[in-house]
Amino acid sequence: MSMNSFGHLFRVTTWGESHGPALGATVDGCPPNVAVSEEMLQHWLDKRRPGQNKNTTQRNEPDAVRILSGVFEGKSTGTPIQLMIENTDQRSRDYGEIAQTFRPGHADITYFQKYGNRDYRGGGRSSARETAARVAAGGVAREALKSLAPGIEIKGYMTRMGEMEIDRARFDWSAIDQNDFWIPDAAAVQDWEDYLQALRKQHDSVGAVVEVVARGVPAGIGAPIYGKLDTDLAAAMMSINAVKAVEIGEGMNAALLKGSENADEIFMGNDGAPVYSSNHAGGILGGISTGQDVVIRFAVKPTSSILTPRQSIRKDGTAAEVITKGRHDPCVGIRAVPVAEAMMAFVILDHILLHRGQIGENQGVIGAPD
Amino acid sequence: MSMNSFGHLFRVTTWGESHGPALGATVDGCPPNVAVSEEMLQHWLDKRRPGQNKNTTQRNEPDAVRILSGVFEGKSTGTPIQLMIENTDQRSRDYGEIAQTFRPGHADITYFQKYGNRDYRGGGRSSARETAARVAAGGVAREALKSLAPGIEIKGYMTRMGEMEIDRARFDWSAIDQNDFWIPDAAAVQDWEDYLQALRKQHDSVGAVVEVVARGVPAGIGAPIYGKLDTDLAAAMMSINAVKAVEIGEGMNAALLKGSENADEIFMGNDGAPVYSSNHAGGILGGISTGQDVVIRFAVKPTSSILTPRQSIRKDGTAAEVITKGRHDPCVGIRAVPVAEAMMAFVILDHILLHRGQIGENQGVIGAPD
Amino acid sequence: MSMNSFGHLFRVTTWGESHGPALGATVDGCPPNVAVSEEMLQHWLDKRRPGQNKNTTQRNEPDAVRILSGVFEGKSTGTPIQLMIENTDQRSRDYGEIAQTFRPGHADITYFQKYGNRDYRGGGRSSARETAARVAAGGVAREALKSLAPGIEIKGYMTRMGEMEIDRARFDWSAIDQNDFWIPDAAAVQDWEDYLQALRKQHDSVGAVVEVVARGVPAGIGAPIYGKLDTDLAAAMMSINAVKAVEIGEGMNAALLKGSENADEIFMGNDGAPVYSSNHAGGILGGISTGQDVVIRFAVKPTSSILTPRQSIRKDGTAAEVITKGRHDPCVGIRAVPVAEAMMAFVILDHILLHRGQIGENQGVIGAPD
Amino acid sequence: MSMNSFGHLFRVTTWGESHGPALGATVDGCPPNVAVSEEMLQHWLDKRRPGQNKNTTQRNEPDAVRILSGVFEGKSTGTPIQLMIENTDQRSRDYGEIAQTFRPGHADITYFQKYGNRDYRGGGRSSARETAARVAAGGVAREALKSLAPGIEIKGYMTRMGEMEIDRARFDWSAIDQNDFWIPDAAAVQDWEDYLQALRKQHDSVGAVVEVVARGVPAGIGAPIYGKLDTDLAAAMMSINAVKAVEIGEGMNAALLKGSENADEIFMGNDGAPVYSSNHAGGILGGISTGQDVVIRFAVKPTSSILTPRQSIRKDGTAAEVITKGRHDPCVGIRAVPVAEAMMAFVILDHILLHRGQIGENQGVIGAPD
Repeated sequence: MSMNSFGHLFRVTTWGESHGPALGATVDGCPPNVAVSEEMLQHWLDKRRPGQNKNTTQRNEPDAVRILSGVFEGKSTGTPIQLMIENTDQRSRDYGEIAQTFRPGHADITYFQKYGNRDYRGGGRSSARETAARVAAGGVAREALKSLAPGIEIKGYMTRMGEMEIDRARFDWSAIDQNDFWIPDAAAVQDWEDYLQALRKQHDSVGAVVEVVARGVPAGIGAPIYGKLDTDLAAAMMSINAVKAVEIGEGMNAALLKGSENADEIFMGNDGAPVYSSNHAGGILGGISTGQDVVIRFAVKPTSSILTPRQSIRKDGTAAEVITKGRHDPCVGIRAVPVAEAMMAFVILDHILLHRGQIGENQGVIGAPD
Repeated sequence: MSMNSFGHLFRVTTWGESHGPALGATVDGCPPNVAVSEEMLQHWLDKRRPGQNKNTTQRNEPDAVRILSGVFEGKSTGTPIQLMIENTDQRSRDYGEIAQTFRPGHADITYFQKYGNRDYRGGGRSSARETAARVAAGGVAREALKSLAPGIEIKGYMTRMGEMEIDRARFDWSAIDQNDFWIPDAAAVQDWEDYLQALRKQHDSVGAVVEVVARGVPAGIGAPIYGKLDTDLAAAMMSINAVKAVEIGEGMNAALLKGSENADEIFMGNDGAPVYSSNHAGGILGGISTGQDVVIRFAVKPTSSILTPRQSIRKDGTAAEVITKGRHDPCVGIRAVPVAEAMMAFVILDHILLHRGQIGENQGVIGAPD
Repeated sequence: MSMNSFGHLFRVTTWGESHGPALGATVDGCPPNVAVSEEMLQHWLDKRRPGQNKNTTQRNEPDAVRILSGVFEGKSTGTPIQLMIENTDQRSRDYGEIAQTFRPGHADITYFQKYGNRDYRGGGRSSARETAARVAAGGVAREALKSLAPGIEIKGYMTRMGEMEIDRARFDWSAIDQNDFWIPDAAAVQDWEDYLQALRKQHDSVGAVVEVVARGVPAGIGAPIYGKLDTDLAAAMMSINAVKAVEIGEGMNAALLKGSENADEIFMGNDGAPVYSSNHAGGILGGISTGQDVVIRFAVKPTSSILTPRQSIRKDGTAAEVITKGRHDPCVGIRAVPVAEAMMAFVILDHILLHRGQIGENQGVIGAPD
Repeated sequence: MSMNSFGHLFRVTTWGESHGPALGATVDGCPPNVAVSEEMLQHWLDKRRPGQNKNTTQRNEPDAVRILSGVFEGKSTGTPIQLMIENTDQRSRDYGEIAQTFRPGHADITYFQKYGNRDYRGGGRSSARETAARVAAGGVAREALKSLAPGIEIKGYMTRMGEMEIDRARFDWSAIDQNDFWIPDAAAVQDWEDYLQALRKQHDSVGAVVEVVARGVPAGIGAPIYGKLDTDLAAAMMSINAVKAVEIGEGMNAALLKGSENADEIFMGNDGAPVYSSNHAGGILGGISTGQDVVIRFAVKPTSSILTPRQSIRKDGTAAEVITKGRHDPCVGIRAVPVAEAMMAFVILDHILLHRGQIGENQGVIGAPD
């Protein structure tokens, strides 16, 4: 089934497996004349890249991206941009036992049940390696946003890793890019690192919560009823490996609130645009942006690849005990941050392109003459 | 933008506004020779229908569905099934003030900012009235599932309403359809009702959590990477009015778990199918069904239409105080239950149709000869 | 399969059968604030309507269109516009024999082989009745074009009907709407009518060629490689009942030309836009409009419903002789003209919407500073 | 705009330009466990490859295809298959004049008007080089057809090249692959070659007609109303460079026929399947296959790149005379044959996959008990 594409007008199709010759993304629908270079995209890939610190896997991929099409003289032509990342680090090993066994918590068993085959060298298509292609394509989306809708800033960060949680009172936007956990609190980094190293020593892993914010998104983008901005964002984040929940604004907490607490009150700002007393809505009402920060949060399950033995079965149905050796993150949430930023960029750009086709003179300007 | 359709092969397009002549759904992709009748669909509409009890709005719509096409001699022909529900109860009133004012927490302001127009008679397209069309179409999906994949059971229920939460130890599947709140605990109904009536007297409303379970879903349906079963389910639920969060299996709680706790262990069942020690995954691994119960949960924000005054602005930018009179649910979560069941039915059917086109001889049967 | 929709951003989904209660179109993606009324749409339906003259079937449907959603206070809201036409003229008759027999040249047999069922009351979904919904939706597209891209004129006409062919030297644009055949030559009408009446008396029918021209289409709309303007136009016309061929510009004749004859030379016009020495290309180069007239032509096969007996088989496989009684056009090409105009309007509007989302400052203006 | 994909379930996205580092196709939706190898695909690429004989351009690309993903141990995994062909022959030259000038009959001017940029090194995205990717992907489609629907044979051939036309009475299926023109008449090859060489000496080019036949297509595939088998085939062929017309079965000639001549009569065959007295329909009725040969024909315009001088303009609007030097086919119809075969394979496979999802027990079997 043709299910490897994401987006309406800005459409990204990723391809490739963890242990194949290469992986990449076909980016179709990038507007023409957007400045795009391998350097620009590499910047974001390096941010995601494994092996950069002891909190992520030691697998050491340069993850160098090549632009094979769609860019001429440093600018997008409006035709498909093909991005390729070669898999240079494919250690050969004896797959004997693991080739026959389904790893608990992994997609090995469901892929086999669906497709009737098994790429026993690793996760194959279900590996988080696929997200490298998203991050590269996210770089294209960011550049397109720069030229189409300047002033939009997209940033992701961790808010929780198992027992560790950020202190909102100490939230520091500028600290996020300064530490390996992308957390908005420099002083907390050491505690988070100690916690994670302890887990690693216990041969265990842990889940996380990641929050992504888009600032400067214009009001009025999104589309009812099934292409809502929040619908597309939920799909975008849920498509990331290991994600089990997605929240917009108040998220699950909305169930505890009363109407008198939840609805954000509206006032007229000095610049002639509406302002809100709060942002319980996460910047989205009825699937359309309000002009406030778009705030999305998601939970990532703990890595299933751990050294603690687990019960499972083989392809032939016999029982097996599984210990997943090799290079794995004790918390995949860290790696999910730049991926989620890329997905946010896809969705915002896509809806801006969709909206541009329909916008009219003074359409929907509050305070404008009828 | 053409954003009012949901689904890949089983595709539902809803149309209509809360105060227009009618609303409905165009159901394209229903397999031929499925038994479909207005009575079958009416059964589900009646379940959703407002005015049936004091916990939902007193607006009294018969919500009678008519089949205008795609069904001949009691069976689907394979061509589009057009479902129409006429809006018979459109009380005329003076819209003078409300016509100019944006109701806080509603999509009035974002629809205006996007489209530059306003259906001041009510929510228009953003009204929960639209969900009646989904429920009717859900009846078609349920019948198609019966003939294509017998044995699948889909049920939704509330697990939380503000401070009220179900006691999992007292979970009673058979009680769900026996009370106005769709809760799996008959003994708790009176407390829930007292709680809600107290809120109504306080001119307030409250949020809720709804859980939907699909039993008997075959292993192997779903599709990486962007058409995952959980991705489509997340989009399906997030598209429902007032939903702010979606969880699969452990959901947000996965962030607190360790790998050694989270991964469901696998064993071989007596019937030759794999069984799992637990269902933290919510029946989905890598976007593909495991054969366990598919479990999804979502949070609904409290109704924004309350009698408590709120600050807002008018189209001309001037300040206004809003009190939303009229017929509104103090908890829209109740009405969301049958809607969520319909969305679950859409997604499961759609992925079964997608999978059928590709399945091969003994494909992916565990224990089968290579 | 969900195959009853046409278009990318302006998306029309038709529904309904020839003998069901109603048929119609769900129009999703119409920009907001376009003036739309039932009168505007009825104008085009009346142009198509059967029974208006002796050259089309005597079946007398009022074909009154109702707008059920998406229009408020005379303007499109930006949400789906539902158009419904009730089937008021459903003569009951004895279907005994025809219910079991496949009519040669009709889709009876292939629909049965695909779907395993048969609407024996008539063509069902495959009936040309479906085109009424296209014409109504075409009225919406025309109004949207008026406001988005003023100055575009779309007109269709017959160029051939069996042995009758128009004389290009006598081409009169203004004559087209003045006769029952939509031919651009008032003086030829009587001959065409005599020819057709003779065929009717012989219990026979005949094929036709229809040409549709769009004037005033801006340069630069369309999209390589698989959403080309000519690709979408070819699909649009081929989707019309009985169409067997589609030509753009020179069409089949291009096979006879030399490069030195075929390529249209380019000059700079006084108004600063390019002009061409000829229009062999039919206004499209590389799938993108040149700014010249967009010219498409298609052939319609003769009506298969004739009184001349034909050999066929029944559902049980036994042989049968078929004479199709009832009300049928001796030349369906006449009725195809307004349908083709509607399809042209869909495609042009759709590509203008697609293009608007991407257009930049002075993008692609010849003679503009780099 | 995301317009570089073709197909519903079997979805091919091509990427790359004539003078970029590489081009290729992302094939999404190939069923799992289909035998696929670079050798299998290379076979078809070699058939198309330029420079193989004096009737096609002398540009000498090895056109070696690499499979970068989606195939493991010689079989498709069910995930995207990435095919890459590197552009090894990119002669550097002085583009000075041509960089500023629009070549008549080419998409240079419309691409510039749409995108506001120009790949002056050649056709860029609009170059026929793109079709190499289609042919490679067509190889995948052919292998999938072999395993899903054995017995289907797809063959294309030229029926006309300017004044040269095949003699149907001498039609020899086996001769097609034996000559450079893919014509079904060995004896005619020398005349065709003399004709083409004469044109080349005159610095001219000529158009052609190509016919493609699919034998053994099961009855019942295709889908009304806008995903008809003939609709998709028309779009498929019209998307090929330089195609100006598409015919199914009788094609344009249907306009000359009477109903008594055109409708194919139906009889019951000895093998229990219907047989037809003729195939005016080209194997398709109402958009669904009849089980007869599917016959499609299209016209290709003459190459616009000729040495005969033509009038045109530059980007700055000034007049220019253009002579297109370099390596160009005097008749692009020759190269279109394997491309059209690939497109036919895409459409047939796609509709077989769509149909498989919906087919039921004994559905639509003529002569079967009700």
